[in-house]
Amino acid sequence: MIGVDRLFVHCRELVTLSDGPPTGPRRGETMRRLGVIEDGAVAVRGGRIVAVGTTDAIAAEYDAAEELDLSGFVVLPGFVDCHTHPVFARTRENEFHMRCAGADYMAITAAGGGILSSMQAVRETDLETLTERTVEHLWGFLAHGTTTVEAKSGYGLSLAAEQKSLEALAAALAQVPIACKRTFLGAHEFPPEYRDDRAAYVQLVCEQMIPALAPLADYCDVFAEPGVFDREQSARVLAAARAHGLGLRVHADEIQPMAGAELAVEYGAASADHLGRISAAGIAALAGSDTVGVLLPGTIFFLGKTHYAPARAMIEAGCAVALATDFNPGSCHTQSMTLIHSLACTQMKMSAEEVITASTINPAFSLQLDAECGTLHPGKRADLCVLDLPSWRAVGYALGGNPVVMTVANGEPVVANVSEREPDWFEGDDPVVG
Amino acid sequence: MIGVDRLFVHCRELVTLSDGPPTGPRRGETMRRLGVIEDGAVAVRGGRIVAVGTTDAIAAEYDAAEELDLSGFVVLPGFVDCHTHPVFARTRENEFHMRCAGADYMAITAAGGGILSSMQAVRETDLETLTERTVEHLWGFLAHGTTTVEAKSGYGLSLAAEQKSLEALAAALAQVPIACKRTFLGAHEFPPEYRDDRAAYVQLVCEQMIPALAPLADYCDVFAEPGVFDREQSARVLAAARAHGLGLRVHADEIQPMAGAELAVEYGAASADHLGRISAAGIAALAGSDTVGVLLPGTIFFLGKTHYAPARAMIEAGCAVALATDFNPGSCHTQSMTLIHSLACTQMKMSAEEVITASTINPAFSLQLDAECGTLHPGKRADLCVLDLPSWRAVGYALGGNPVVMTVANGEPVVANVSEREPDWFEGDDPVVG
Repeated sequence: MIGVDRLFVHCRELVTLSDGPPTGPRRGETMRRLGVIEDGAVAVRGGRIVAVGTTDAIAAEYDAAEELDLSGFVVLPGFVDCHTHPVFARTRENEFHMRCAGADYMAITAAGGGILSSMQAVRETDLETLTERTVEHLWGFLAHGTTTVEAKSGYGLSLAAEQKSLEALAAALAQVPIACKRTFLGAHEFPPEYRDDRAAYVQLVCEQMIPALAPLADYCDVFAEPGVFDREQSARVLAAARAHGLGLRVHADEIQPMAGAELAVEYGAASADHLGRISAAGIAALAGSDTVGVLLPGTIFFLGKTHYAPARAMIEAGCAVALATDFNPGSCHTQSMTLIHSLACTQMKMSAEEVITASTINPAFSLQLDAECGTLHPGKRADLCVLDLPSWRAVGYALGGNPVVMTVANGEPVVANVSEREPDWFEGDDPVVG
Repeated sequence: MIGVDRLFVHCRELVTLSDGPPTGPRRGETMRRLGVIEDGAVAVRGGRIVAVGTTDAIAAEYDAAEELDLSGFVVLPGFVDCHTHPVFARTRENEFHMRCAGADYMAITAAGGGILSSMQAVRETDLETLTERTVEHLWGFLAHGTTTVEAKSGYGLSLAAEQKSLEALAAALAQVPIACKRTFLGAHEFPPEYRDDRAAYVQLVCEQMIPALAPLADYCDVFAEPGVFDREQSARVLAAARAHGLGLRVHADEIQPMAGAELAVEYGAASADHLGRISAAGIAALAGSDTVGVLLPGTIFFLGKTHYAPARAMIEAGCAVALATDFNPGSCHTQSMTLIHSLACTQMKMSAEEVITASTINPAFSLQLDAECGTLHPGKRADLCVLDLPSWRAVGYALGGNPVVMTVANGEPVVANVSEREPDWFEGDDPVVG
């Protein structure tokens, strides 16, 4: 018998995505199979997967002091959410309801809403408080089964406030057992002090912020959109970031087409994100590249719009497609990847296999973490998402709520979502953990 | 000091809906205010609300052996979900994905899906097992903050199987602390044995099922829809039900218009439900009646359609509008009223005030339970939904997941949803409660 730290056994279905090589993007519908093992088990040592197989096979070969019975549950690789904005100080529910009531972006901005209201809040909030908020947001991802995130700055929009944001993120990551790639998004919007001199803000981002903040980030992102950063301004930001060793991501073709996907491919970006208005040429460019198309259907839904990204056309063209929450206080306040699955199935017509692939190995590839997570291959981190579903085929079908009952990061159960019936409230000191 | 059983204190916001009379429907946007009390408290005795007010005021007047601190949480009346189909035996995730892939209803039926697959499952399942399934489904509502449901039969489609369904519901209700009105829905579809003699099935429903099953139900419902029960067949079912003392509800104008809303009003039905294709005349008829329009946006979303019911036009015309989940295995597999809130805000442009009203007092009125629940008035059942939200204004904004941390029914905490961080898994015998 081989000694390991822990065994997870009797998973109703263990979705390994390991019926193929451990790394690389999953393009198209049938690139790989899910590698589902019934009555599956995972052996873990030192936070890494040692072996996966049937419970009988694993139990015959491995011996562990601790064994966790996951009978009745479906187990996936921990979700990888590759587009989030968790470094913010305040929620923005008021403008959500203004928007539902028909207010346009200008009216919301005039009422103190929009990205600039988050900017104001971040600038006014001290590092310690911003770190606390970020800690809460990172735990929220874990509670919904996500074990790896990409996290952006971008509500500071000054050197000092962007630095504070990335420092808050680093401090939060020291407290929360979640894996993360950090993205500098100084080019998220033009701050008010540069409204009338946009070139000067681009220069500030390229010549001061990127050089100063590159050590605190893995990627640089830019909101390439008509009226925000135009093609030339976006290209300058991407070039400066690349020169300072940062990987690249692009908010591309979200609201109006601007050949953003093509720009992302031209600069070798790891991802082109949003893509509600991607063109046929953009799809072709992505399909011929290693740039992952990151689709954010929660944002379209949250904003009450209908121009979902053309997932089917992209998959059929051979693009690698990922799904992400876009968690942020203004345009998509959700941390639930399972809700994103429902949106992707019903609104973008993706299959169960595709949404699983698009929330595990494909986003891992877009973060250059595909050797670390996204499938249940031996040697990777033992990150698991344990779901109370009748089958992996119920992904998307189980609408609303949180079907995640446990999240395992680096082999440790880090969150348990327990629905206690008839709890004995009055014996404990602190019965409710929010 | 007045002695009571229990105090719930320090609610960040207690949304009483009590700024007006305790009963009746809430039509339109501004019919009543929400009656929000900051740092609110509820005094409970014998399962009923004795008083609501600020914590200071309640604590000065009432004394209880047990006190539960709800600091940081928003508290609403327990949700009232007035359109659900919880008596089913099997989920139908396979046809969900077929539909997302483009299969039409005929193709799904040919592959063994559709209502008739649920009928087959219910007919094959024994009473005990069907009761167990129903018990699980009723607990699922409580876990999402719903303390009162309307529950339909309708997957039996024979006298014996409809009776088994209503008996399973009664047996389940004896085990679960949720309030319920029971609805007979034999006229949900035509079973295969009557496909070619529809008149005979209508006769069976009217002359055998309704007389035999009326004692087991509070309401009778009919799926009034071209191709299912036409206007004349629907009217026959409604008349027979009324003659046997049942209240009436109508699946009306869901897919194709059929003047279903007008039919519901003509027969004095308590509700007309779905209404995706309600006409201007139907809106006018509802607005001039006590029939509540029950909107089911989850179903439109789940089916990948876009013709949401015209909530704004209905509210502006003066209709009383309720929201419900339509929980069922085929066309809407959700029990989350908070997800319905997000759909209602983003897709139907309802306000926070409206969605709260539409998921509490208005559905209570449609169930003739408005003297019992739906607001936090003294004398009503002490049913509370405790939410981890920054404000009641974040209703709808908090997208996905389950923000409900506690559900109180008849003054008792019946469900606690606890997200435990870094749980100590290996000391308990049964760490996960699904």
